[in-house]
Amino acid sequence: MMHAPTQKQSMLGQGRLSRGRVAQCTRKSIRRSCQVRAGKTSTGPRVAIVGVTGAVGMEFLQILKQRDFPYSSMKMLASARSAGKKVDFDGETYTVEELTENSFGDCDLALFSAGGSATKKFAPAASDAGCTVVDNSSAFRMTDGVPLVVPEINVEAMKDIKLGKGGIIANPNCSTIIALTAVTPIHKAVGVKRMVVSTYQAASGAGQAAMEELELQTREALDGKPITTNIFPRQYAFNLFSHNSDVDVDLGYNEEEMKLVKETAKIWNTKDVKVTGTCVRVPVMRAHAESINLELNAPLTVDEARKLLENAAGVSVIDNRKENDFPTPLVASYNDDVYVGRIRRDISRDDDCGIDLFVCGDQIRKGAALNAVQIAEALL
Amino acid sequence: MMHAPTQKQSMLGQGRLSRGRVAQCTRKSIRRSCQVRAGKTSTGPRVAIVGVTGAVGMEFLQILKQRDFPYSSMKMLASARSAGKKVDFDGETYTVEELTENSFGDCDLALFSAGGSATKKFAPAASDAGCTVVDNSSAFRMTDGVPLVVPEINVEAMKDIKLGKGGIIANPNCSTIIALTAVTPIHKAVGVKRMVVSTYQAASGAGQAAMEELELQTREALDGKPITTNIFPRQYAFNLFSHNSDVDVDLGYNEEEMKLVKETAKIWNTKDVKVTGTCVRVPVMRAHAESINLELNAPLTVDEARKLLENAAGVSVIDNRKENDFPTPLVASYNDDVYVGRIRRDISRDDDCGIDLFVCGDQIRKGAALNAVQIAEALL
Ligand SMILES: NC(=O)c1ccc[n+]([C@@H]2O[C@H](COP(=O)([O-])OP(=O)(O)OC[C@H]3O[C@@H](n4cnc5c(N)ncnc54)[C@H](OP(=O)(O)O)[C@@H]3O)[C@@H](O)[C@H]2O)c1
Ligand SMILES: NC(=O)c1ccc[n+]([C@@H]2O[C@H](COP(=O)([O-])OP(=O)(O)OC[C@H]3O[C@@H](n4cnc5c(N)ncnc54)[C@H](OP(=O)(O)O)[C@@H]3O)[C@@H](O)[C@H]2O)c1
Repeated sequence: MMHAPTQKQSMLGQGRLSRGRVAQCTRKSIRRSCQVRAGKTSTGPRVAIVGVTGAVGMEFLQILKQRDFPYSSMKMLASARSAGKKVDFDGETYTVEELTENSFGDCDLALFSAGGSATKKFAPAASDAGCTVVDNSSAFRMTDGVPLVVPEINVEAMKDIKLGKGGIIANPNCSTIIALTAVTPIHKAVGVKRMVVSTYQAASGAGQAAMEELELQTREALDGKPITTNIFPRQYAFNLFSHNSDVDVDLGYNEEEMKLVKETAKIWNTKDVKVTGTCVRVPVMRAHAESINLELNAPLTVDEARKLLENAAGVSVIDNRKENDFPTPLVASYNDDVYVGRIRRDISRDDDCGIDLFVCGDQIRKGAALNAVQIAEALL
Repeated sequence: MMHAPTQKQSMLGQGRLSRGRVAQCTRKSIRRSCQVRAGKTSTGPRVAIVGVTGAVGMEFLQILKQRDFPYSSMKMLASARSAGKKVDFDGETYTVEELTENSFGDCDLALFSAGGSATKKFAPAASDAGCTVVDNSSAFRMTDGVPLVVPEINVEAMKDIKLGKGGIIANPNCSTIIALTAVTPIHKAVGVKRMVVSTYQAASGAGQAAMEELELQTREALDGKPITTNIFPRQYAFNLFSHNSDVDVDLGYNEEEMKLVKETAKIWNTKDVKVTGTCVRVPVMRAHAESINLELNAPLTVDEARKLLENAAGVSVIDNRKENDFPTPLVASYNDDVYVGRIRRDISRDDDCGIDLFVCGDQIRKGAALNAVQIAEALL
């Protein structure tokens, strides 16, 4: 049913951590969504990767290659710091160029993962030049007229945007994508009234440097050396902490939690769903986990919920109570699907309108680069 | 206000992991509960430590010494495997003896942390011999007539048990103790109707060997070596997984989650509270964290909740939204209090009857040994 990576593949280590690891595409996800297979072809779009030197940027390249995404030319963009660096892709070596407002005249599609401020500055220029933007940052997610898309959920929201005609499509926040890929099949069946979400978020969500700091700190902690804290203000190794995004001093929610709240409403196109979240970073490298309690508009049995999830695009169910086998971040790492388990009737309710779930997803893939490439595929 | 350990104290490592680390007692908790100060004295009870070679057993010794618990004699018990080993306590060296049914004729108090099956076998023998048992295992927690006690919450439940007259008092499960130490002040004020709890549980909850396996696996993962899995059936380093206790195949809840549900009702002496929980092990050594969503019987503002918590015995509040400073397992490690933060109004509700909390507690201390010693102090 699912093609889990071997322990050796998914284990951290083997001489190096996640940088440059060859990604694993599950058979199920290939069957479902790797429809467009071409690679370099004169009829493909002219593509720019913006932020190519980052964690998401590197993953873009792996996913484009793996899915044989069609392209006629490829442009590698990052900041002035990286200009001149070499990047290999699909058998050719490219030189990284500095991102400027003039980078996009000869591009039809730009995959952005360059942070909020660079995106705010350069994505409109790309769009004005007729280059269609798929953006990973939060810069335009809540902007009116910018579709916020998870292809399995609401691909219709981007129907007015055409490749090579400009326009910006936003990729949701990684925690939102992973939660909603699992929860939406249930929402579409019976309606979700309220969600209580607690996250277990990996270092990768904070970029390449955060993963490296977690590795360095872990070595330091094991060796009894002082802990290096450049990226986060506190020890991360063998610890966990409330998500590092800014906290709204009035509400007490951090930005990551508010993204879950607001993006869910936009993606589901409803004001009626209620969400509370607690976002936490745990010392895991790559994939996020989330504990989700659902309050439903109508009764749903566990068997019905499991069936909905088993038939859902982009979802794999691992839910073996007898063997205590449920999703883990390592099983999700380097895989495309969102893994769901611990599917239970909420025993704290007197009715059958409560379901508990535990989900894991590789947030650099489905939580970022893969989702953006799926959006790009839907544009073709 | 609170006496957090220095980074150096609380950081893992410094040549060795947690075994044998000198514990830190917060000033606040000393003020509150270290009332009984005597040490070795002819008027003190005759004490046995059962399971002294384990993680909780070793912590018992540290806490007894730190709090100058009065004793006239001390007996160190474990399995036949450990008989003959030497243990230092309070300036004297003791020889570990094998636990038998005849171990307790000359004891007034036995602190048990020897696992469920040894406890089922030997705690009744101790009680029959007139030795009062305080037990850390789950063996008798739900037994009628056995008080299940968190001293800050329901010390009155043990009023019929007298030191040296037999009887068994049970220590609740660590996740339950840590959650309820924080939540009970709110429950007593306005009533908690329903709790949704997601845990982030440390290796220490599975004993000394689990902590050692997490350390070993982490080194292996960093060095790219095959992962040793003796204690848990899967990789723990840089990973997390649904709690390792057995899962009820009908309900889908694991034993750890059902303890939260059932023990809460017993400790609060009510059938009216509803609890759903998702218990997860994270790669942290020593202290548990829990994300708790509360549904209340009456409105409560965040300021009122914070004031209740600030005045609660055994609780320290760390809740600085501006600085993004909230409880972490490392801050809680080697400390006595349960740390509470992320105190927020639940924005998924239209009324003011929802509060979110994030709590951390050292589960070998407050989650196990400290709570048991506090129970013993209440017997004096
Ligand atoms: N990490 C994730 O899983 C994830 C998930 C969802 C969304 N995102 C979003 O994706 C974006 C990138 O995340 P990441 O994790 O890949 O971060 P990262 O590893 O730090 O990489 C950042 C990339 O952006 C480039 N960049 C930064 N400032 C730039 C500028 N002024 N002009 C041009 N390029 C610039 C960097 O180039 P240099 O190397 O030249 O500095 C680098 O290529 C962020 O907006 C993040 O919020 C990330
Ligand atoms: N770890 C925690 O934080 C925590 C929290 C709450 C409750 N508890 C409970 O406390 C108990 C001990 O936990 P732990 O973490 O300290 O485990 P541990 O590190 O594995 O230690 C177990 C102890 O029990 C002794 N023991 C085992 N079987 C015995 C037998 N048949 N007769 C006599 N002694 C026996 C062991 O002695 P040998 O060395 O001779 O084998 C050892 O001293 C368990 O019931 C656990 O559920 C633990």
